[in-house]
Amino acid sequence: MTATDTTTMRAWAYLSRVAEPPRQELAVLVDRVGPVEAAERIRCGAVGPELARHTEARREIDVAADDLDILDRRGGRLITPGDDEWPVLAFAAFRGAVATDKPDCRPPLALWAVGPARLDEISERATAIVGTRAATAYGALVAAELAAGLAERDVAVVSGGAYGIDGAAHRAALAADGTTVVVLAGGIDIAYPAGHSALLHRVGASGLLVTEYPPGVRPARYRFLTRNRLVAGLAGVTVVVEAGLRSGAANTASWARLLGRPVAAVPGPITSAASAGCHVLLRGGAELVTRVDEVIELAGRVGELAQDLPRPVAPLDGLSATERQVYEALPGRGLVTVDQIAVASGLAPAQVFGPLAMLEVAGLVARRDGSWGIARPNR
Amino acid sequence: MTATDTTTMRAWAYLSRVAEPPRQELAVLVDRVGPVEAAERIRCGAVGPELARHTEARREIDVAADDLDILDRRGGRLITPGDDEWPVLAFAAFRGAVATDKPDCRPPLALWAVGPARLDEISERATAIVGTRAATAYGALVAAELAAGLAERDVAVVSGGAYGIDGAAHRAALAADGTTVVVLAGGIDIAYPAGHSALLHRVGASGLLVTEYPPGVRPARYRFLTRNRLVAGLAGVTVVVEAGLRSGAANTASWARLLGRPVAAVPGPITSAASAGCHVLLRGGAELVTRVDEVIELAGRVGELAQDLPRPVAPLDGLSATERQVYEALPGRGLVTVDQIAVASGLAPAQVFGPLAMLEVAGLVARRDGSWGIARPNR
Repeated sequence: MTATDTTTMRAWAYLSRVAEPPRQELAVLVDRVGPVEAAERIRCGAVGPELARHTEARREIDVAADDLDILDRRGGRLITPGDDEWPVLAFAAFRGAVATDKPDCRPPLALWAVGPARLDEISERATAIVGTRAATAYGALVAAELAAGLAERDVAVVSGGAYGIDGAAHRAALAADGTTVVVLAGGIDIAYPAGHSALLHRVGASGLLVTEYPPGVRPARYRFLTRNRLVAGLAGVTVVVEAGLRSGAANTASWARLLGRPVAAVPGPITSAASAGCHVLLRGGAELVTRVDEVIELAGRVGELAQDLPRPVAPLDGLSATERQVYEALPGRGLVTVDQIAVASGLAPAQVFGPLAMLEVAGLVARRDGSWGIARPNR
Repeated sequence: MTATDTTTMRAWAYLSRVAEPPRQELAVLVDRVGPVEAAERIRCGAVGPELARHTEARREIDVAADDLDILDRRGGRLITPGDDEWPVLAFAAFRGAVATDKPDCRPPLALWAVGPARLDEISERATAIVGTRAATAYGALVAAELAAGLAERDVAVVSGGAYGIDGAAHRAALAADGTTVVVLAGGIDIAYPAGHSALLHRVGASGLLVTEYPPGVRPARYRFLTRNRLVAGLAGVTVVVEAGLRSGAANTASWARLLGRPVAAVPGPITSAASAGCHVLLRGGAELVTRVDEVIELAGRVGELAQDLPRPVAPLDGLSATERQVYEALPGRGLVTVDQIAVASGLAPAQVFGPLAMLEVAGLVARRDGSWGIARPNR
């Protein structure tokens, strides 16, 4: 690693810890000035009041070198937006969601990862299998059968590593020599739940453990909810196998919906509390699935859509940071107003006009009826 | 009973046996000339070639008086389209279906009935609960709970009297002092299945046994399928509790859909063959229901729709038989062409114009863009 690389990676590691993710102002700053300069500014408090407030508690903690050592000893890597392994298309969906919906639906800043599987390849062909920790024998059986079937067809199984449905899915995928991914709600070095430490170790050895939290961070309730957006974001389709009425799986499903990804649920006996959440999802429009074929069909549709709407990537290279920031704030499809772009990008409305004009000249954005959207190349 | 009444009832009884229902040409003839004249013409073969062919085998059999005696001894009655008890609104849906879809989706000619419940009242607030004979304990439990819940809310339970789901639903409705209706696939005097003769007796004593077949007719496979359209037609909503992939319940569901009535299905374990047909229905757009409230909600919606679209009944009294025939051939909602009216009514297109003009003058039908529909009174 060159000195520059080391500096950059330490900056990413520092940034990954300095604010509780996801923090929009931080993402905007990094987009604008790059990670090294962003880390420098935060360290000395030279940032806007909102970001200053959210980094105040941790800005003097710099354990980046130690964090990277911990990762290194586990044979891991820090995946950042510039890497080949960064799942560009998967995270593109977050942009549309940001522009239109919840402000905390953002891609991760960077990802701590351990395991031989490549994140970009996984995200092109992955299904999330999620559900309640209080799984019944029926739910565990169904999760295992679906995961094994997906593994046989080279579809990666993404889940949260919890007891119950998650664990049944990971185990079955491993047993079928498939790729399985655990998105952790804490540091890469924290085996949670402890009873799954052997399972997590096996996933790290053959699939992928991934998290947006730096080493040592303990899972907490809000981190599980934040983590769930990455489970949904990395998968083409989210399948809820069993869920009670107040289950985290419903939260993952709502992230998937926000990201425009299909949500599927497995029905069960109406007399089983562990299926009640699935039935609520199904009544709300989730796809009912009974076989792995039906899941693959949903995942396939998404793959086709994803290929239908590629963003022009290469032309962005010549853009200024602000132009890129404005461009990234546009939704994947549809039109938004200047004010919406301002909200999504964190720029003042007055700062949006210039970059929009440049992007229009470059043929990257198009205006209709006073609103703006991504320009589509003619086919 | 006056001599005229007796003649009329015997004519209905004769007509009910002379052709295998539903027979469109027979319905058209009866609409046109009334039951007594229709019976007379069929007896002497003075009918069109199609109807002649379909009545040839039985036109010399006249056991109408005996049939009515059998019915009378059971305390039953023959319900005909002129009766107060005839479920006009329920059967109105068949007209729309006839005009647009399957030719064998017709209301019954007349109904043989035993039991204290009134058919017109039942049909205003009834739910069909149907399913496989090979029910599991889960299915039987769910059918019973739904039926009991419906009974408690004064919703009649309609089904086919078969083993399995049907029987569980009827029994639970009876136990809850509710009204339950068995639509038989044979004569009112044939207890089928034999193992349900006590159950059928109880239904006839407190609810209603009803059939379009005259006494002595044995159930046969095609009669079950024909019978299913009446189960769907008498109920505001059809709920399939358990069904295999090749179940008669799916047939009832497709009749309900054809009649524009909601179809609901209860999910179950994807590992249970007895729920596989339900899951197919649910994937095809049936409503997933888990509680009696959700069923009532569906039934309620239909009730509101039914009240939204009442046909003007009284003004029809002054119409000629042909005018009435043309009017009845119009769908409940939407527009049709003269050719479609001709097909639905059995009249030649040239015979349709005159009656349509008269109906338009009477304000009963309306023309738009060369097509015709029922005129709606202003509210």
